[in-house]
Amino acid sequence: MHIVVDAMGGDHAPHNIVEGVVRAIKEFEKVHITLVGLEEQVRTELKKFDCPQDRIDIVHADEVIDMHEPATVSIRKKRNSSISVGIKLLKEKHFDAFVSAGNTGAVVAASTIRLGMLKGVERSAIGLVIPTLNKFSFLMDVGANTDPKPQHLLQSALMSRVYAREVLDVADPAVALLNIGSEESKGTGFEKEMYKKMEECIPNFIGNIEANAIFTGQADCIICDGYVGNIVIKISEGLMESAAALMRREIKKSPIALFGAILMKSRLNHIKRYADYTEYGGAPLLGVNGIVMICHGRSNPKAIKNAIRATMREIEHNIIQCMETDLKKTTK
Amino acid sequence: MHIVVDAMGGDHAPHNIVEGVVRAIKEFEKVHITLVGLEEQVRTELKKFDCPQDRIDIVHADEVIDMHEPATVSIRKKRNSSISVGIKLLKEKHFDAFVSAGNTGAVVAASTIRLGMLKGVERSAIGLVIPTLNKFSFLMDVGANTDPKPQHLLQSALMSRVYAREVLDVADPAVALLNIGSEESKGTGFEKEMYKKMEECIPNFIGNIEANAIFTGQADCIICDGYVGNIVIKISEGLMESAAALMRREIKKSPIALFGAILMKSRLNHIKRYADYTEYGGAPLLGVNGIVMICHGRSNPKAIKNAIRATMREIEHNIIQCMETDLKKTTK
Repeated sequence: MHIVVDAMGGDHAPHNIVEGVVRAIKEFEKVHITLVGLEEQVRTELKKFDCPQDRIDIVHADEVIDMHEPATVSIRKKRNSSISVGIKLLKEKHFDAFVSAGNTGAVVAASTIRLGMLKGVERSAIGLVIPTLNKFSFLMDVGANTDPKPQHLLQSALMSRVYAREVLDVADPAVALLNIGSEESKGTGFEKEMYKKMEECIPNFIGNIEANAIFTGQADCIICDGYVGNIVIKISEGLMESAAALMRREIKKSPIALFGAILMKSRLNHIKRYADYTEYGGAPLLGVNGIVMICHGRSNPKAIKNAIRATMREIEHNIIQCMETDLKKTTK
Repeated sequence: MHIVVDAMGGDHAPHNIVEGVVRAIKEFEKVHITLVGLEEQVRTELKKFDCPQDRIDIVHADEVIDMHEPATVSIRKKRNSSISVGIKLLKEKHFDAFVSAGNTGAVVAASTIRLGMLKGVERSAIGLVIPTLNKFSFLMDVGANTDPKPQHLLQSALMSRVYAREVLDVADPAVALLNIGSEESKGTGFEKEMYKKMEECIPNFIGNIEANAIFTGQADCIICDGYVGNIVIKISEGLMESAAALMRREIKKSPIALFGAILMKSRLNHIKRYADYTEYGGAPLLGVNGIVMICHGRSNPKAIKNAIRATMREIEHNIIQCMETDLKKTTK
């Protein structure tokens, strides 16, 4: 399989991206990777590593979209950006997937414009695999569509079920609607309407889920709009960072506690690894006609490597075809 | 000062409520409390404690609104509920405040209908004092108004500034708008409009804040709609509970780690206390013409006692008058 990777995306590009790609090439025998970006810079980075050259190549793209540029404008203006060129390769050369840690809005815009949508899907959505107390759940949308219509969430729910089934190995994924109460009558008019529609159209719909139950693993797929989903992942990130900072501060106050922390270290590391987003790689952009994986802007090489692994799984399981089949079945 | 307390509100009423009230009476010399609820049950609970009787009395209310009853219907149908009677006492007897751990929607509805709104405020909002890395911040709205108009959020922002100034002792509270990006251009149309309006009308408006920065203490007041605010507090609650469960599970796997945890215990307890909502008491309902404090349905006696302490502070600082003055000044 052949994956295109945006070498210029993220806060530490191209270094972290190239190192992640090198690790992936070494670890996963089946993959071939095309790095897209400023050729000279990418080549310089690549020379730092000892790596089989026959499964990596570089395609030059002479523009870079910054992390904070307005998405649609940047895609229109920078036609030779690594994101635009990467998506173009995916489309025209029939490569298997595109991975980027760059400007999320720009990746979504470029994918939507160039790849088009799957039949039966009007808006794309970004999903995220989150660790819960007993397994993994799939939260969607975490930021592509901040002001969705009911049918967009229904389409997201159908796609998320396919993702959970094919990539997370859940036989019949349970789908829940994120809401501010578990009763059908809770939420704004939008959520009440959604509840009814999901009950009608979504297989194994288990009702509303409150935010405090997200991490318990009750639902395999948790559906929300992109605005709320984005708040959910950012608050989780912020809270865990603040809690860790608070813990370090408190432990330093007492030598006994510090000694205790040293004894606990291996278990604490285990927890850290468990909650560490870099273990699970990127966030799939679903709904566009092609496999696109979005990585955190702060991705380190391990996160990039694991995002490539997750992308390979999508390719192996023919996720696009599976989604098309399911969408066709349900919208009939 | 004279506070009315709903004896029947919350998952463990009247026991937890009465015990919390008894603790408050013992600890705070200035307070007189009227407990409202099923008189016989309340009296039985009260007999369990040794406590100065001259500062507690009971007013009978023969109906109880369940935690999950639809709010407005229950207020209309159960005219003798502890919530309705409590609010009526506040209004007619000119008592100083009402505290309830009961059905939040019912408390909001009863307060709005019977007390009316402050001049210049169209919708009430619930605020919450949250611990951050270096002090406390005030998050509002956490659930009263899930579908607000821009002017509602502006009114909330003005009220939250008064609360932070009077109750949290912040001289000139910095106000931020919760959004999915820090730039002015982020969010849906609603957030973009809000940004402009807040910049115009709110003193010391510091712009957008992302959810991952809520717990850093950058902003003294964080403004959002009640739907998102509710998600924020519930996800924080759920995440901390899941993290603690995960930690216990991991520690049990290794005797060395367990020993380490014992050595860390006093510092861990300190953190726990820091993050414990029961330390800060209730969540003020602002915008109605009277002091109303809403407590978590799971409130233990300590939470009730601390909610009474926070309510006393609102009374001491004449929070209603302060808000009226500030609202008048800004809407001139």
